[in-house]
Amino acid sequence: MDKQYFRQISQQTLKNPIFVQGLPGFGNVGKIAAYLLVKFCGAKPFAELYSPSFPDYVSANSKGICRLPRYEFYAAHMEKNDFLIMTGDTQPSFDDVRAHYEICGEILDFVEEKHCNLIITMGGVPITEEKAQVYVAATSSRLALEFMEKGAVIYSRGRIVGATGLMLGLAKERSLEGVCLLGTTTGFKADRGAGFSVFKFLTKAFGNEVKEGL
Amino acid sequence: MDKQYFRQISQQTLKNPIFVQGLPGFGNVGKIAAYLLVKFCGAKPFAELYSPSFPDYVSANSKGICRLPRYEFYAAHMEKNDFLIMTGDTQPSFDDVRAHYEICGEILDFVEEKHCNLIITMGGVPITEEKAQVYVAATSSRLALEFMEKGAVIYSRGRIVGATGLMLGLAKERSLEGVCLLGTTTGFKADRGAGFSVFKFLTKAFGNEVKEGL
Amino acid sequence: MDKQYFRQISQQTLKNPIFVQGLPGFGNVGKIAAYLLVKFCGAKPFAELYSPSFPDYVSANSKGICRLPRYEFYAAHMEKNDFLIMTGDTQPSFDDVRAHYEICGEILDFVEEKHCNLIITMGGVPITEEKAQVYVAATSSRLALEFMEKGAVIYSRGRIVGATGLMLGLAKERSLEGVCLLGTTTGFKADRGAGFSVFKFLTKAFGNEVKEGL
Amino acid sequence: MDKQYFRQISQQTLKNPIFVQGLPGFGNVGKIAAYLLVKFCGAKPFAELYSPSFPDYVSANSKGICRLPRYEFYAAHMEKNDFLIMTGDTQPSFDDVRAHYEICGEILDFVEEKHCNLIITMGGVPITEEKAQVYVAATSSRLALEFMEKGAVIYSRGRIVGATGLMLGLAKERSLEGVCLLGTTTGFKADRGAGFSVFKFLTKAFGNEVKEGL
Repeated sequence: MDKQYFRQISQQTLKNPIFVQGLPGFGNVGKIAAYLLVKFCGAKPFAELYSPSFPDYVSANSKGICRLPRYEFYAAHMEKNDFLIMTGDTQPSFDDVRAHYEICGEILDFVEEKHCNLIITMGGVPITEEKAQVYVAATSSRLALEFMEKGAVIYSRGRIVGATGLMLGLAKERSLEGVCLLGTTTGFKADRGAGFSVFKFLTKAFGNEVKEGL
Repeated sequence: MDKQYFRQISQQTLKNPIFVQGLPGFGNVGKIAAYLLVKFCGAKPFAELYSPSFPDYVSANSKGICRLPRYEFYAAHMEKNDFLIMTGDTQPSFDDVRAHYEICGEILDFVEEKHCNLIITMGGVPITEEKAQVYVAATSSRLALEFMEKGAVIYSRGRIVGATGLMLGLAKERSLEGVCLLGTTTGFKADRGAGFSVFKFLTKAFGNEVKEGL
Repeated sequence: MDKQYFRQISQQTLKNPIFVQGLPGFGNVGKIAAYLLVKFCGAKPFAELYSPSFPDYVSANSKGICRLPRYEFYAAHMEKNDFLIMTGDTQPSFDDVRAHYEICGEILDFVEEKHCNLIITMGGVPITEEKAQVYVAATSSRLALEFMEKGAVIYSRGRIVGATGLMLGLAKERSLEGVCLLGTTTGFKADRGAGFSVFKFLTKAFGNEVKEGL
Repeated sequence: MDKQYFRQISQQTLKNPIFVQGLPGFGNVGKIAAYLLVKFCGAKPFAELYSPSFPDYVSANSKGICRLPRYEFYAAHMEKNDFLIMTGDTQPSFDDVRAHYEICGEILDFVEEKHCNLIITMGGVPITEEKAQVYVAATSSRLALEFMEKGAVIYSRGRIVGATGLMLGLAKERSLEGVCLLGTTTGFKADRGAGFSVFKFLTKAFGNEVKEGL
């Protein structure tokens, strides 16, 4: 395999789709939030992305069947805006910065082709004292304020690393609009609470109330 | 040298060949098993693969003659299925993940060209308590079960790293079938016992009984 | 994003421009000196450079608006020579040496296109005892002596690492002339004093006296 | 700079030239031996090689004039065989294995173009007890024996890392003949004694006696 490639899993026609991304990372917040969103929306597998910049292993499932690491895209048909949700097993190797730019670029090509009019990335942000909050950064001041009014806190403290930040920066370079939602988390272990906070904020922001018992 | 290349060593016509790979790795299990198979089958040198992603050294033999690190392919003519056996001095640099994907892809091109109908990779799997076993993971549930019936244990515990796993994942992406046989080993030093277990399992699975005194 | 690219911010006609570069690095001396020069000259934003070899993060400002790391070019219209000033958020990853050569090469293409007749790079140089000085290294003996007469000390102690040195070496390969001005600094933290020394030396060398109270 | 390139310094017609390489490395033996050979033969600067895989610094000389790291080629006109001698400031980054293969390949293209009929690489080999010796490894058994008869010891202990070994391995792949001469050294600091031993062995092997007082 020389280059990344997409494999189409199903045909789906998306209406006014919003792209939502949650990958493994700090506290695994983004991935957990994306997983909850896929379940909540009953999203269907749509496409997969494979790349020679992903790590060189396969994962075996309970039946001993193995597969390459990949990104997965799910399509969810909602009342207002459809969702195109992306999650995955991994991020490219820490050292291979150029691969990060290339893969995010390929995904944005795909996202533009599907006519997504908003990019939402989800991740975790480290805090020292425990206080559950969702921070927002955006490609424009208007969008940052819009999500602040919905209850998020403006993220004005510096950097957002990895695909969570890079997708937004590269989207802006293409004049696409986007926001990044960051759940506060204290540790490196998977933080289901922070993932749930981001998921809940997102669904509420787009007009769906989540019951606490989920 | 800009790109990897194959050098043909001899002309061999293979009947229904099975591709078997054993490279250096955990406990050197894969390489030892491949070496034993080459000896057992009286396999003949067939081709060599050189790559700019292999380490930058030469090895001098007892006469002071030096050569580049390489992968070696051997052809074995058997009763039922012929074997195309691959082993080698090394794996690409740990850091150069992209090279792993590229080289495995080139090998699969070669393997498809030779009409191999099954891919078998061999390696080691770390265990804490000593118990000699051969684990199996596969590209399909049918194959995993078939090798389980022959005495292997389903490998359902996660990842298979390096070429041992990657070849299988990439084979699956091309709709090729394959299995990975993993011998249990406790340490990092060369584990001849584990290598022998995998070799013995493999030969028995394909209808050749190995005498213990080998 | 596969390749670095320039984005033009404004149209500026430069007369006999001198290219001046100050990037983050040892003691942040180069970046601080460039920043002071931009302020002192009232330089205007001119162009930006983005690259897939820059780190994979975005920076959020006080309003939560985020952007990719970049190099920034400013144009300053002066009495004698105009300045084309470059500064930036970062340098390419330490490991990706090839990217350093490529990006410096792209910048030199840009600088030649703008008819800059002199390249000045600014940086810090580590010292053990505190003594504020500006060292000079150059592409020719004539230039080194010219700046020595203006008060700099010849830098004859070995290497100049990163873009500060590489730009000069690559400029020389193109038969462009250039000097490197290095402010002495004792530590790794941002050294405003050393940055100011380099800035003051530079402005004086080109006929502008800086008042101490700046 | 995107690619390595050669710069011709002078025109030289070489008769039956032998290529001799000594680069920085273990004990700096190869570089010292090449330096002594250049001085002994009165060799003249012939060409330079620049590469984006060399480290990203410039070196300033005593006059503050700086230049990029490079490989240097010298031509020596001798009674029997002329020498094309290569030395340099550096080797490519340890991590960038692919660059090692590429640069060695480019040099071999250059060496073949100049009709060199033998490749000699010089380096150091670590030993624990001090015993000055020159080891030899070669592309063929005949050559190894030929240099053994001249007083070298067959190197049959494994690997020769970096350009010293790689040039020989790649030369062999092109059906060029070559030998590697390794001086024993105990430490990592520059070992002038070992460098002198390799130099003295080489000149004697090609019919020039070196007086001890050099």
